Amino acid sequence: MKIMVINPNTTASITRQMATSCNNYALPTTQLIVTNPTLGVKSIEGASDGLNSAYHMIELIKKSELEGVQGYVIACFDDTGLAAAREIAKGPVIGIGEASMHIASLLGAKFSIITTLQRSVAIIESNAKVYGFLGACCQGVHALNLPVLDLDNNQKGYTKMLAKAQQVVKNDHAECLVLGCGGMTEWGVKLSNDLGIPVVDGVTSGLKLVESLLALGLSTSKKITYAFPIEK
Amino acid sequence: MKIMVINPNTTASITRQMATSCNNYALPTTQLIVTNPTLGVKSIEGASDGLNSAYHMIELIKKSELEGVQGYVIACFDDTGLAAAREIAKGPVIGIGEASMHIASLLGAKFSIITTLQRSVAIIESNAKVYGFLGACCQGVHALNLPVLDLDNNQKGYTKMLAKAQQVVKNDHAECLVLGCGGMTEWGVKLSNDLGIPVVDGVTSGLKLVESLLALGLSTSKKITYAFPIEK
Amino acid sequence: MKIMVINPNTTASITRQMATSCNNYALPTTQLIVTNPTLGVKSIEGASDGLNSAYHMIELIKKSELEGVQGYVIACFDDTGLAAAREIAKGPVIGIGEASMHIASLLGAKFSIITTLQRSVAIIESNAKVYGFLGACCQGVHALNLPVLDLDNNQKGYTKMLAKAQQVVKNDHAECLVLGCGGMTEWGVKLSNDLGIPVVDGVTSGLKLVESLLALGLSTSKKITYAFPIEK
Amino acid sequence: MKIMVINPNTTASITRQMATSCNNYALPTTQLIVTNPTLGVKSIEGASDGLNSAYHMIELIKKSELEGVQGYVIACFDDTGLAAAREIAKGPVIGIGEASMHIASLLGAKFSIITTLQRSVAIIESNAKVYGFLGACCQGVHALNLPVLDLDNNQKGYTKMLAKAQQVVKNDHAECLVLGCGGMTEWGVKLSNDLGIPVVDGVTSGLKLVESLLALGLSTSKKITYAFPIEK
Amino acid sequence: MKIMVINPNTTASITRQMATSCNNYALPTTQLIVTNPTLGVKSIEGASDGLNSAYHMIELIKKSELEGVQGYVIACFDDTGLAAAREIAKGPVIGIGEASMHIASLLGAKFSIITTLQRSVAIIESNAKVYGFLGACCQGVHALNLPVLDLDNNQKGYTKMLAKAQQVVKNDHAECLVLGCGGMTEWGVKLSNDLGIPVVDGVTSGLKLVESLLALGLSTSKKITYAFPIEK
Amino acid sequence: MKIMVINPNTTASITRQMATSCNNYALPTTQLIVTNPTLGVKSIEGASDGLNSAYHMIELIKKSELEGVQGYVIACFDDTGLAAAREIAKGPVIGIGEASMHIASLLGAKFSIITTLQRSVAIIESNAKVYGFLGACCQGVHALNLPVLDLDNNQKGYTKMLAKAQQVVKNDHAECLVLGCGGMTEWGVKLSNDLGIPVVDGVTSGLKLVESLLALGLSTSKKITYAFPIEK
Repeated sequence: MKIMVINPNTTASITRQMATSCNNYALPTTQLIVTNPTLGVKSIEGASDGLNSAYHMIELIKKSELEGVQGYVIACFDDTGLAAAREIAKGPVIGIGEASMHIASLLGAKFSIITTLQRSVAIIESNAKVYGFLGACCQGVHALNLPVLDLDNNQKGYTKMLAKAQQVVKNDHAECLVLGCGGMTEWGVKLSNDLGIPVVDGVTSGLKLVESLLALGLSTSKKITYAFPIEK
Repeated sequence: MKIMVINPNTTASITRQMATSCNNYALPTTQLIVTNPTLGVKSIEGASDGLNSAYHMIELIKKSELEGVQGYVIACFDDTGLAAAREIAKGPVIGIGEASMHIASLLGAKFSIITTLQRSVAIIESNAKVYGFLGACCQGVHALNLPVLDLDNNQKGYTKMLAKAQQVVKNDHAECLVLGCGGMTEWGVKLSNDLGIPVVDGVTSGLKLVESLLALGLSTSKKITYAFPIEK
Repeated sequence: MKIMVINPNTTASITRQMATSCNNYALPTTQLIVTNPTLGVKSIEGASDGLNSAYHMIELIKKSELEGVQGYVIACFDDTGLAAAREIAKGPVIGIGEASMHIASLLGAKFSIITTLQRSVAIIESNAKVYGFLGACCQGVHALNLPVLDLDNNQKGYTKMLAKAQQVVKNDHAECLVLGCGGMTEWGVKLSNDLGIPVVDGVTSGLKLVESLLALGLSTSKKITYAFPIEK
Repeated sequence: MKIMVINPNTTASITRQMATSCNNYALPTTQLIVTNPTLGVKSIEGASDGLNSAYHMIELIKKSELEGVQGYVIACFDDTGLAAAREIAKGPVIGIGEASMHIASLLGAKFSIITTLQRSVAIIESNAKVYGFLGACCQGVHALNLPVLDLDNNQKGYTKMLAKAQQVVKNDHAECLVLGCGGMTEWGVKLSNDLGIPVVDGVTSGLKLVESLLALGLSTSKKITYAFPIEK
Repeated sequence: MKIMVINPNTTASITRQMATSCNNYALPTTQLIVTNPTLGVKSIEGASDGLNSAYHMIELIKKSELEGVQGYVIACFDDTGLAAAREIAKGPVIGIGEASMHIASLLGAKFSIITTLQRSVAIIESNAKVYGFLGACCQGVHALNLPVLDLDNNQKGYTKMLAKAQQVVKNDHAECLVLGCGGMTEWGVKLSNDLGIPVVDGVTSGLKLVESLLALGLSTSKKITYAFPIEK
Repeated sequence: MKIMVINPNTTASITRQMATSCNNYALPTTQLIVTNPTLGVKSIEGASDGLNSAYHMIELIKKSELEGVQGYVIACFDDTGLAAAREIAKGPVIGIGEASMHIASLLGAKFSIITTLQRSVAIIESNAKVYGFLGACCQGVHALNLPVLDLDNNQKGYTKMLAKAQQVVKNDHAECLVLGCGGMTEWGVKLSNDLGIPVVDGVTSGLKLVESLLALGLSTSKKITYAFPIEK
């Protein structure tokens, strides 16, 4: 199975972290490509960053389709460009936002999400509403107030995250925590140990879901919403 | 008030129809610009078309900001790129999807939407869910099964629309109908006469809402979600 | 356009404040009447006050229909008697509660409402639920715990409002604030300056929406819910 | 227990039917008064009828409070004036719309409502949304398209009702039917026999709920929303 | 009317408290049986306790059907086994969770629930969501963090409850409180006096609802969901 | 990974079909056990069947915990006993109802479910509401009106299913279909080919999800709702 994990921003160090995480969990039969578009923005903080990144990510997916990629993970928690990617690709496409919400729903009655900036909260909440999780298992989306690029190799960032997570878990009665940014992928195991509850990382969750779909012989329905774009 | 109505697709004949509609309703004090990006797609049918168009529309808005445009209407019923545009622009930005749903909510207890293709229905429903209208006043989104570019100067299209509208009004107990595509702007008055209920066109509705916001001295909050993009 | 703004309570000083606000924003082509019924209650604080006021307001509207009024604003945030008024009037009728929620939804991803008394909160929340805004853009309805009649010319009231607003904005992550009482109409501009976010006043918002509907040639659907009352 | 069942319209023959139904089910310890205001409208068909009736009903309740009435049933399916009545009365007040939805929820997983006119559907749906039943047990509100006053002693009306009920039960997979008008109170037992499922009449349901609340020593909370009106 | 109130756990002292409460409110015509299964668990704290108890409760109901019991109250706030019991029994079956939420909805615009342990909160919230109350009248479900068996004859428990209730009432703006455990049945009257708002006990509420249904000649619909189990 | 797929009913031929399906998709590293309790009911048709089966399934899980089973699939579409099983087991537990809804949400904007009997529809809808899918991706739950035991080796059953599926896909605009009963597991691939859209089988979907969770080192949160049962 040839699976591509796309970090939609252009920061290679984040892409490398994602690669490290994914390599820990990929099946032996998975031919894993973890990459990012060369054009776009360094980090996705808000809708215009997301739109810019998605535009270039779609170009990358178009090219990758010709190279036989069979499934994709979009490694931005906003699931930016997800619907467009589903139209373009023949195989399954999973956003890490949806991936982690699906997985977290299987682990506890209540989960909460911690993302980077407050400006991303409404985007994630809208997604969670459309997916159905907001007000179901999802108790809330909270901001760490730390820019994406400050997550990288940042002990102070982790300390801030742990404090925030402890507060969120207490207030929301959350039984499971979701890492609300692809750049937090390294923190999952340590945070779970420190909190004593499952912590879900969307990057690796997305990878396992794509592997599962491919194993099941399932892919995006090409019937209506995600049909290939109409030639004009 | 310098207001720009943007048809996000590149089909000039549709832009001209929108201009005709808007000229009928603009205030004398409104300096109206109705235009489209020169790059993108001929019509927006699905998410990847929408993403492509939005990308180029944002470039147009960035340029227009420097030229003193004070408010914008995004004349695609999917409200494509709306959140990104709100981040970029200083003045108010209104999508015709949201505009027509807000206006229709003021006219009857129940309204329904008729759009072009079935593939757009889930996009519009997701928007209507996030805005709050789906299951409130909005009774449903229906497809005419007619491509956007076939709407243009098309008597047969209108006949099909009227038949569909009559059926939708009956089944949904709709008291008001919403034209679910910017390319339908010419049909509003005639369809209202033929159906005997108000028919809402988002293009002109959006224009009046932008004029109203500007008159009230109100614009997009720049505090959190729609703050200007962060320089990196 | 002959438009009537009705303060449904009988306190003329509040009606005068509304007139001042509306005169600042009405179109030159608008023939504006700002008035109140002579019977009813001095302020609307709860459902029985609202019912009493609405009863007398409907009488006023019946009379005004004969005098050629083309559109109405009901200037009580509870939107009291709105559905009945829509049945009686030929032209559009807008409540300031709905008006401000529609307008606020166009300005930010999240808004909150501050009203006068806690006893009005459930009424407003029920409206916001039926309109679709509660849990969509609307983050909550909060009480200032200040009676309506204490709002008038009240510097202490404003100070209390500002403090409450700052707290609500912080807790709700609100990007826009809605004045939850017609008697707060004077506070809009000042409060917006003090908070640094848009503040929506329903009275002037309602006026611009009625003007917009009339300009668009749109009025209440007379087909089902808001058909003229049946003679018996 | 002195309990008053108020038919809010002025048609005495409907009041008499309600009295017949209630006498069949009242406890021996209940001192039952079934009455109607002398002013108002002959039938409640829409919001302005409802407002008019509610205004006069409130006057009746004020007077009845002085005469020691301990609990009330408002026998209009729109629950018109319910919140106002709860403010005025010291004892419990129950609308027949809410009463029948509560009772129906206890009898089957899905129930549907059949009311008289289509114009009442949105009113009832809004109530059902605020109470929480719409989309929970309540599958829909349907119109018989028969005016309230035609229900009276009307074999043709019953035949129409039975046909409509059979269709609704089939389409909605309803396991229980709710009579959506106080004037249908006579039809309950016969319709249940003809349909083979429970049929809920709000008038008698409301009576039993008021009796139950009084027996339990429970009444309307006077703390916030339904506190007595504020003297001004 | 032969009515059985079943405490689904095996703790006889709790059953006795329920009997005391019910004897205070039962009609003279009610032949009341308050009992518990002899097998199962001592208290229901979580889903597996609930499943175990429900299994044995169903056996008890099967036997009681043969002994002419006409209606049942399931006196566990989780409404454990309610749907199964409705299939088995010919007469009405009411859970105390649903009973108290229905009754509380009739008393105030907002109510809150206090249960014993945090682990029961998600169960109750799911029920409240399915019934329709969560986000309607029901403002929240809170845990006292006191095991069920510690409720019994426990002055310290009551003191803790009162403090929690005061806090919940304030934060939720609750106008009515619901006792979220059958073992709290003794606290209702005293807590209502101490809080100054209605307090709803599900055990007695359930009893009055079953009596009411029987008086109205209504029982569980045997048409679809609660049809008798299919012989295989 | 030692994974147990439990058919909660006692019909071995259905268990064998599930084994066949699972063997096609299990990882080489998975030690797969497909089994059923020896006590209970032959098929689960309604809540009392579900309760009976769940009781015996929990006994099986308790025993299996001692034998080192690391993860479970509950192969009844009602997800019967799921919460209780999550409390008992140390490793992840997935119901095939939830599994298939999660997977289907990843494949198209809209999916519909076809189950066996109408009496199961309300159970599945309640689950779908609590999980968040109903009104999100899930468009509806439909009944084939075929008992579970008639699914087995039944060409006529398949023909009926195909006809029903075609109708549901058309009416619901479903892009993906979910097999709403564990006994339909054999039909997935053929039905997908015949319909031209993805068809999701919960049994194999559940298996891949449990494998994924185990691979990710994730299991049920033992903090609150699914903590091990409290010893009394």
